[in-house]
Amino acid sequence: MVVYLDHAANTPMLPAAIRAYAEAMGVVGNPASVHSQGQNAKRMLEESREIVATSLACDPIEVVFTGSGTEAINLGIKGLYWARAPRRRILVPGGEHHATLDTVEWLAHHEKAIVEWIPLDDLGRIDLGALAAAIARDPADIALVSVIMANNEVGTIEPVAEVAALAAASGIPLHVDAVAAYGYIPVDFRTLAAAGVSALSVSAHKVGGPVGIGALVLGRATTVEPLIHGGGQQRKVRSGTQDVAAAVSFAVAASAVTTQLSPVPRGAVRGVDTARLSALRDRVIAGVARVAPSAVLNGDPAHRLPGNAHFSFPGCEGDSLLFLLDAAGVSVSTGSACQAGVPEPSHVLRAMGRSEIESRGALRITLGHTSTDADVDALLAALPAAHAQALAAGMADRVPGR
Amino acid sequence: MVVYLDHAANTPMLPAAIRAYAEAMGVVGNPASVHSQGQNAKRMLEESREIVATSLACDPIEVVFTGSGTEAINLGIKGLYWARAPRRRILVPGGEHHATLDTVEWLAHHEKAIVEWIPLDDLGRIDLGALAAAIARDPADIALVSVIMANNEVGTIEPVAEVAALAAASGIPLHVDAVAAYGYIPVDFRTLAAAGVSALSVSAHKVGGPVGIGALVLGRATTVEPLIHGGGQQRKVRSGTQDVAAAVSFAVAASAVTTQLSPVPRGAVRGVDTARLSALRDRVIAGVARVAPSAVLNGDPAHRLPGNAHFSFPGCEGDSLLFLLDAAGVSVSTGSACQAGVPEPSHVLRAMGRSEIESRGALRITLGHTSTDADVDALLAALPAAHAQALAAGMADRVPGR
Repeated sequence: MVVYLDHAANTPMLPAAIRAYAEAMGVVGNPASVHSQGQNAKRMLEESREIVATSLACDPIEVVFTGSGTEAINLGIKGLYWARAPRRRILVPGGEHHATLDTVEWLAHHEKAIVEWIPLDDLGRIDLGALAAAIARDPADIALVSVIMANNEVGTIEPVAEVAALAAASGIPLHVDAVAAYGYIPVDFRTLAAAGVSALSVSAHKVGGPVGIGALVLGRATTVEPLIHGGGQQRKVRSGTQDVAAAVSFAVAASAVTTQLSPVPRGAVRGVDTARLSALRDRVIAGVARVAPSAVLNGDPAHRLPGNAHFSFPGCEGDSLLFLLDAAGVSVSTGSACQAGVPEPSHVLRAMGRSEIESRGALRITLGHTSTDADVDALLAALPAAHAQALAAGMADRVPGR
Repeated sequence: MVVYLDHAANTPMLPAAIRAYAEAMGVVGNPASVHSQGQNAKRMLEESREIVATSLACDPIEVVFTGSGTEAINLGIKGLYWARAPRRRILVPGGEHHATLDTVEWLAHHEKAIVEWIPLDDLGRIDLGALAAAIARDPADIALVSVIMANNEVGTIEPVAEVAALAAASGIPLHVDAVAAYGYIPVDFRTLAAAGVSALSVSAHKVGGPVGIGALVLGRATTVEPLIHGGGQQRKVRSGTQDVAAAVSFAVAASAVTTQLSPVPRGAVRGVDTARLSALRDRVIAGVARVAPSAVLNGDPAHRLPGNAHFSFPGCEGDSLLFLLDAAGVSVSTGSACQAGVPEPSHVLRAMGRSEIESRGALRITLGHTSTDADVDALLAALPAAHAQALAAGMADRVPGR
């Protein structure tokens, strides 16, 4: 039996979300078709949109379904950038998810954007003073600001309302990447929009829904240039045949998000229990401190995602720890992209001011709705031997040129 | 019981594809994760990619999964356009699907593309002489040519090999929209690539697979600029967590595509039986000629999709016919986008030289793997009354300004 502690990469689907998906796949009809079967499919789609909207405290018309969280982030950032032409500056912290980093870098080399990286402090929090100073330099030329709501690697919860207030004071739209936050901390678009947030991205498969569907929440007053053109579905913002079955399944997971953060009505689908998850996470943090005292907890110790425990293990390669724990039946992540087996330092830790060496011994342990005390026990039982072996192996020499 | 004759919009999923999807959703693991569960998911994904590749006669590495056929077309066309900068001309016939039309129009108004519309003849076939003349004018400035393999409205099969030869002679990449063709006529990428095709788009839900996944087949020698940036999945061409369950289900439908066009091994999943479908279609065409002699068959009478019968009914609104047939329990399509209930003339018929009035009385009847003789009987039984009533209602006045 494998112990799965990589919920941030992909959390198991809720059984009710699987059942709903399977059932909806049997319904025939393209929701864009005019006949009764098409209209029936459309009704299922729009009911699902309402349930997803409730989980995000936004209006259904503000929910634009996409094929992934990555597509939502691309649409939010590129869409705002293009809609705000000829403004060219983009302000973004250096520890964002690759969907943001690679998107703004593409805009820089391809669409003449000027990307300004806002520093993070040593806990992974955006430097609000640096942001304010960057805005003050030439607010009229800023196309947008983008910020992650909670960091997907180190788990730090960002001061999004404060970022929004700074951007809004100069009339600058703010895109929020809420992919890692959604389902774990409240994501209340109405309140965020009032603070100045223009668009917000989420993904279904991070909350027990299916892979292959995400959403961009787009405030009514916000205009974005579409990324995918065609039949003009979804207010022409995102074309392509709408995926009714995926939306129905997403809605089941979204309803669990709604109930987990409020008193639970009888019979409601339960997703993550955040209090329970925080307690498990704190057991991980205390346990790692006991069995590997040299390990350093990364991210904000107080304001962090309930399911996230992220450590640096000095003198170890994160990849070595990962493989050794995997061999012991425990699935975790380094939290950094590993390309072609070459250990890569975490860009998040680098943005937090850590050295390259420090940024390579990272391990991300993320808990979710199926996690138990037994999972934590198994991790803590396997860690001492894995840690000792990884320490003995030491740090790999860097491949030249990488 | 509703008679479903709108398979071109969305064909019912194969029961085996639904079962495979439901089962795969229970598998935990992100295929980009390094641990064993991630690698297991990756194995499922890559096995699916192989099966999809076989159905298209291409190599697995050439299959880039997307969130829809529309996204594949956007990636193929925009990706080629950007990769071929600073070339600005795009040659495209006027009867393409909206995913192509809206994409090239966006490139025109946003990225300085010069779109040149290649005419169609009265059967909907691309004018090869006009294409050759357009290429000859200034081949060095042409970014790409895009052509549909079989028209999604009128069913005409286009001379793709001839188009490819003309483009290839000048070193110009050709994108082929094979969304409507796939599963109904052979789509052999290896042969097409040898003729000069660079990229080709398909969608799973047109062949009994799920909505929410498509593919761009990208020849090994072809470079496109990505549309969605992020984690660098799929040769960095299309980022975003890969949808394993959708790929597994797509593979089931793709294996049916492979077997239907070759001798069927025992136990193989069957998709469309094209000979059976052509016979049903010919019954529709003969029956409509009998019960509504004024109706005109659109598209190429010989070289057309086996499941497609597309008519103009002079003196009728296509929408009236659609609604009357729907009330009689028969689901068909006008084949043209109907926005906010305003009858729109078919842009395909317009590109074929028909008047605006003629382009409004269109009805598309499309058959698929679940279609039976009883479906055709029901259509032909309902049509005379619907036709008489639609004739009596006549043509609606045009809304000013549209």
